[in-house]
Amino acid sequence: MAERPLDVLNRSLGVQVLVGLKGGKEFRGKLAGFDMHVNLVLEEAEEIQGGESVRRFGTLVIRGDSVVYISPAG
Amino acid sequence: MAERPLDVLNRSLGVQVLVGLKGGKEFRGKLAGFDMHVNLVLEEAEEIQGGESVRRFGTLVIRGDSVVYISPAG
Amino acid sequence: MAERPLDVLNRSLGVQVLVGLKGGKEFRGKLAGFDMHVNLVLEEAEEIQGGESVRRFGTLVIRGDSVVYISPAG
Amino acid sequence: MAERPLDVLNRSLGVQVLVGLKGGKEFRGKLAGFDMHVNLVLEEAEEIQGGESVRRFGTLVIRGDSVVYISPAG
Amino acid sequence: MAERPLDVLNRSLGVQVLVGLKGGKEFRGKLAGFDMHVNLVLEEAEEIQGGESVRRFGTLVIRGDSVVYISPAG
Amino acid sequence: MAERPLDVLNRSLGVQVLVGLKGGKEFRGKLAGFDMHVNLVLEEAEEIQGGESVRRFGTLVIRGDSVVYISPAG
Amino acid sequence: MAERPLDVLNRSLGVQVLVGLKGGKEFRGKLAGFDMHVNLVLEEAEEIQGGESVRRFGTLVIRGDSVVYISPAG
Repeated sequence: MAERPLDVLNRSLGVQVLVGLKGGKEFRGKLAGFDMHVNLVLEEAEEIQGGESVRRFGTLVIRGDSVVYISPAG
Repeated sequence: MAERPLDVLNRSLGVQVLVGLKGGKEFRGKLAGFDMHVNLVLEEAEEIQGGESVRRFGTLVIRGDSVVYISPAG
Repeated sequence: MAERPLDVLNRSLGVQVLVGLKGGKEFRGKLAGFDMHVNLVLEEAEEIQGGESVRRFGTLVIRGDSVVYISPAG
Repeated sequence: MAERPLDVLNRSLGVQVLVGLKGGKEFRGKLAGFDMHVNLVLEEAEEIQGGESVRRFGTLVIRGDSVVYISPAG
Repeated sequence: MAERPLDVLNRSLGVQVLVGLKGGKEFRGKLAGFDMHVNLVLEEAEEIQGGESVRRFGTLVIRGDSVVYISPAG
Repeated sequence: MAERPLDVLNRSLGVQVLVGLKGGKEFRGKLAGFDMHVNLVLEEAEEIQGGESVRRFGTLVIRGDSVVYISPAG
Repeated sequence: MAERPLDVLNRSLGVQVLVGLKGGKEFRGKLAGFDMHVNLVLEEAEEIQGGESVRRFGTLVIRGDSVVYISPAG
């Protein structure tokens, strides 16, 4: 039952995730990598507002320090 | 009497918890894991406003740096 | 005369304390535990506004990073 | 001439000090202890606004992370 | 599939990148270097607002602590 | 030519300095000490607004974490 | 091609630089020194608003923690 946070990220590699940042921005993309600081690499990333894509990126590196939550698509 | 904070989290595994974040957001879900940085894993997570669920997630990883308080359901 | 901050917390175990957080929230409860990061465990915790209880929790874990001040009841 | 900050705190033990916090709050009280993180213990503490006491505490532990300045009474 | 964040920066050397900062500023420029703190060096850097260049710099060193995201041009 | 920041503080001991803090407050006083965290001790300190003294302190300890800039009087 | 951020600062010693801080303030001056925390020493420093000098300092020590970007004059 005790699943470590980085384990969740590990089994989410290749899966689409939603990432919430300090200040309220949200990004969605395929999790392509991360490190122990929770720095993230998303592929086919897009910024999301109200569930809608408002901006598209290719690869996006997000600094862990700005990350509030990460949710893999179910 | 002196119960350490991480001990409380440990005995709350599998239990529904309320998590308050910097900026005021609150999430509720079953605590599925955590680490020593108080990074958390919630299952069947939802965002709460005024006691009501306003958004549903499956698994949610929350960075400890954003966490203000955690309260296990009684 | 030189009483260390963590010593004050140690002799406040089991005592009701008032905890002020960044952003201005205040919680009151019986101090049930803490660690060296000033992460706290409160029992019979409640959120306080203007001296009044506005919300009740059972056990509440508060991250030290959010704590501004702690005052044991006299 | 080179007086270290913690030396000033050390010779201020038992003396009334004014403490300014991030966000602008000020507390006044007798400095009863501190540690190397500049966590402070005040006795007979009170919150000050415009030079007036607006709230009284007994013992107050203040986290160093919130402290901006400390001034011992002359 | 697990590509580390710093690896993405490494293979982006010499490539134009978009850098988003805390507070919302965005800079664009050729990534000329970085270190493990995600401090960045951009060449031919410009500040971007609404997709338009509003200010030009030559070399720009950005502190990693202010960086939220980095996206290499596709 | 490469003068280290702490060297500047060292040769400013006993000299009046202007200290700018996060949030915009400025203090002026004789630099009586500092440590490697840039915690400062000012003597005959005063808070400055628009070049005018608005509040006088005797000794003032300022936490380095709040300091943005320090300028010794020419 | 991989030029490290501190290398850029090193070859900017004696050169006029523009320094952007958290909160938006900008300073300009001759870079006289720095350390690995990106604490900076500027000589003949001035605060800049809209490209104009609004305040002059002699020597200015800036804490790295407040620095967002540094750009050497071309």
